[in-house]
Amino acid sequence: MNASSSSSTVDVATVLAALRRTLGDVAVIDADAQDAARYLNDWSGDYRGAALAVLRPATVAEVQDIVRLCGQHRLAIVPQGGNTGLVAGAVMEGTPRAVIVSLERLNRIRGVDAENFSMSADAGAVLQSLKDAAEARDMLLPLALGAQGSCQIGGNVSTNAGGINVLRYGMTRDLVLGLEAVLPDGSLFQSMTGLRKDNRGYDLKQLLVGAEGTLGIITGVELKLFPRPANVETAYLGVASFADAMALFRLAREVCSDLLTAFEVIGAECVALASLANPDTRVPLQEDWPVHVIMELGCSPTIDGRALIESLLAEAFEAGLLGDGTIAQSRAHAKAFWAIREDLVEGQANYGRHIRTDLSVRLGDVAPMIERARAHLSSNWAGWQPLAYGHAGDGNIHFNVLPPRGMATDEIRRHGSRVLEDLYAIVREFGGSFSAEHGVGRSRRSVHWDWLTPEQRAVSKALKAVFDPLGIMNPGSILPEA
Amino acid sequence: MNASSSSSTVDVATVLAALRRTLGDVAVIDADAQDAARYLNDWSGDYRGAALAVLRPATVAEVQDIVRLCGQHRLAIVPQGGNTGLVAGAVMEGTPRAVIVSLERLNRIRGVDAENFSMSADAGAVLQSLKDAAEARDMLLPLALGAQGSCQIGGNVSTNAGGINVLRYGMTRDLVLGLEAVLPDGSLFQSMTGLRKDNRGYDLKQLLVGAEGTLGIITGVELKLFPRPANVETAYLGVASFADAMALFRLAREVCSDLLTAFEVIGAECVALASLANPDTRVPLQEDWPVHVIMELGCSPTIDGRALIESLLAEAFEAGLLGDGTIAQSRAHAKAFWAIREDLVEGQANYGRHIRTDLSVRLGDVAPMIERARAHLSSNWAGWQPLAYGHAGDGNIHFNVLPPRGMATDEIRRHGSRVLEDLYAIVREFGGSFSAEHGVGRSRRSVHWDWLTPEQRAVSKALKAVFDPLGIMNPGSILPEA
Repeated sequence: MNASSSSSTVDVATVLAALRRTLGDVAVIDADAQDAARYLNDWSGDYRGAALAVLRPATVAEVQDIVRLCGQHRLAIVPQGGNTGLVAGAVMEGTPRAVIVSLERLNRIRGVDAENFSMSADAGAVLQSLKDAAEARDMLLPLALGAQGSCQIGGNVSTNAGGINVLRYGMTRDLVLGLEAVLPDGSLFQSMTGLRKDNRGYDLKQLLVGAEGTLGIITGVELKLFPRPANVETAYLGVASFADAMALFRLAREVCSDLLTAFEVIGAECVALASLANPDTRVPLQEDWPVHVIMELGCSPTIDGRALIESLLAEAFEAGLLGDGTIAQSRAHAKAFWAIREDLVEGQANYGRHIRTDLSVRLGDVAPMIERARAHLSSNWAGWQPLAYGHAGDGNIHFNVLPPRGMATDEIRRHGSRVLEDLYAIVREFGGSFSAEHGVGRSRRSVHWDWLTPEQRAVSKALKAVFDPLGIMNPGSILPEA
Repeated sequence: MNASSSSSTVDVATVLAALRRTLGDVAVIDADAQDAARYLNDWSGDYRGAALAVLRPATVAEVQDIVRLCGQHRLAIVPQGGNTGLVAGAVMEGTPRAVIVSLERLNRIRGVDAENFSMSADAGAVLQSLKDAAEARDMLLPLALGAQGSCQIGGNVSTNAGGINVLRYGMTRDLVLGLEAVLPDGSLFQSMTGLRKDNRGYDLKQLLVGAEGTLGIITGVELKLFPRPANVETAYLGVASFADAMALFRLAREVCSDLLTAFEVIGAECVALASLANPDTRVPLQEDWPVHVIMELGCSPTIDGRALIESLLAEAFEAGLLGDGTIAQSRAHAKAFWAIREDLVEGQANYGRHIRTDLSVRLGDVAPMIERARAHLSSNWAGWQPLAYGHAGDGNIHFNVLPPRGMATDEIRRHGSRVLEDLYAIVREFGGSFSAEHGVGRSRRSVHWDWLTPEQRAVSKALKAVFDPLGIMNPGSILPEA
């Protein structure tokens, strides 16, 4: 496991020249080149990153070459997928002795195995391209994210991405049948077996899933596919409270067995944000309701999905859980429902700098947690506007906060970090998580470390030391720098 | 992570006396006591085990006491659940300097959280008792094994148990929402959060799942529950070949969306074994078919499961994939179908010593692998009778072999290990696994180690060293003894 130790006195320019010779010009972008900005900076614009260079290997062997050479000269490596993360896991600030390794040129779909309901691909393949390839064979790759047009599957696996279909299909971890990764000593870890059941010793690939590139660089993945639910039913509903929304979710799970694919809640206050992004936003409800729900189920054509959702809604209405609602009459109609969910995210970006969270609690605590956080804001942070929406079926709420209109950026930053602390303290009271799906990266490292028990810290550090004794792999992400 | 180092010169009797004082008489069974045999010996009777004593802690704190004291005096610990494993993971041969730690007295159900669709329990709780507790709240704990009346949930998690419902609900790993474990230094690892989504740093609990007690002793678990499918349809089918069975499986997944809960195949040659265990066995087919299938689906009463399975079978019949079949008309009827599957396992035990495997391959390789293994036996091992059955929907086939009638035990043992080697070589040609669900333990350690790449060996060893630097935790299971 030890990278060969060697002189670190060779200067950086010499190492970069050697990399250029090994990889070719197309694979090396100088940090001061115009092209470099989109790799160096964070997607949100919150981070202005830096690096010695951006490297773009096109083969697994080239990734190994990079890792070996960087190890020899103690250059740090920041693996990067589509750079769509939200926690600064793939960018570095300051003047780091680090290179960014973008997987974007390692982007081949290796194959679709229809009999095995699986597909394999290079880490740099864009998620949407994999979803399209699965659909072309009448199967479903269920991972579904806002960023799916640009995020890469290697990044999805490294961050154990979530999204709107976790409810039925699980997190990315649950979809991974096999992995291939370059370890920090340059060796290749291989478990691309495609087996659905394999209980041979330690399941090492589980360590690399969600490790955010701190234990190695994922270069290939094999993923579970599912039968494509040709029959999809989508409903947009209005309910009286988050508590009612959660009771409706429970009923929906029971009535629809495991056919429910999404159950998103949207506080009515968020809908104004959607209109900010898209003035044509039309809410498909007759009256105003405090909480909106987008519910979707998918099944084969042999099952009458429409009858199923209608029977669920009738039962919910009788139970007093449902105020009002519309079932989509076409795919275009359903798309208009989902546009509200997407536009409210864009609306926040348009509003300007704001506080974003990614909280999760037990399902029974979703409504109380939102209530508690709203009450806290209204008592302590006058003028700051809470927004609550998210993947309620998974207990995952993005409880975001808009600062008062017109507040100066540095004031937002200063107060905002305290608002965030307050929200984290509240979710902690409920035994919840400050990072349900976005990961830790650099922006949540300090709160992460703060919450860990001494045992968890010790095991995390020891694990990192085992894989990466030199500390070259994405240092400062997840763990404090050694 | 380091256990405190201390003298190991204290004699064993002194340590056991200290344990008896700490834990009380009821918690310590001498190795030569009559009661000890059921802990010391393997369930299959293949292993005659030994230990210094059997310890039966009743609290998590007592488990910690045991681990600390054993660490101080370098006594090895063999954690044991229901002792129903098949790979000698919880028993030791020879004259080991080891104690068995049975979790059987740590067996409380901690709670069922209906809103969260989850339950938590001590590690020693018997699986069936958890299933019953879930069902009493109209929910389902889907883990389903032959040994469920005596196996313990901690053992299930430690071995990442499989069973007949993996198809829809996954392996035990997929059901674990939280874990509590005593690490080899006596510290307590806690992640009993019950959160469905939590992406904070390394997911350390994944390491303990499937580690077979070599990295720590699991003391508590929190598990996912599901809506109980009140509507269950079971069919017993006859098909012409394993290839047809796999094509039928594909069609069934497509037609039934994700409502299929089981898809078991049984080579017709196995049915005679069922009759051996139960002379009243009646196969619910009109004619002889080479391969039998038991298929089950579960759904809510709102979905017409009967219509669904009938429509699937009609389609399969038209496609020429189906020879004959019966849909169960009652729960008792379905039970009779499943009895054939259970009795064929008992029939093998009645037959006497035989070769057992637990192979898995990609779904497309199931039929070719069985064909290849049968051909090999008939050419090379005259008189040895192959049996092929298993969880075909997961690519997991128990390809077992009965030795010729009347062969002496030592001959069976001698030839049998070569038959096993041949079968492992065949599954390896297909890129498969020699242990789909049973684990490695001691009986498959050598083949496991043989198949690992140097990288996998290095990471496995390093991981073990991080958690258990003294090597006291279930030494010789999974990894070679240091």
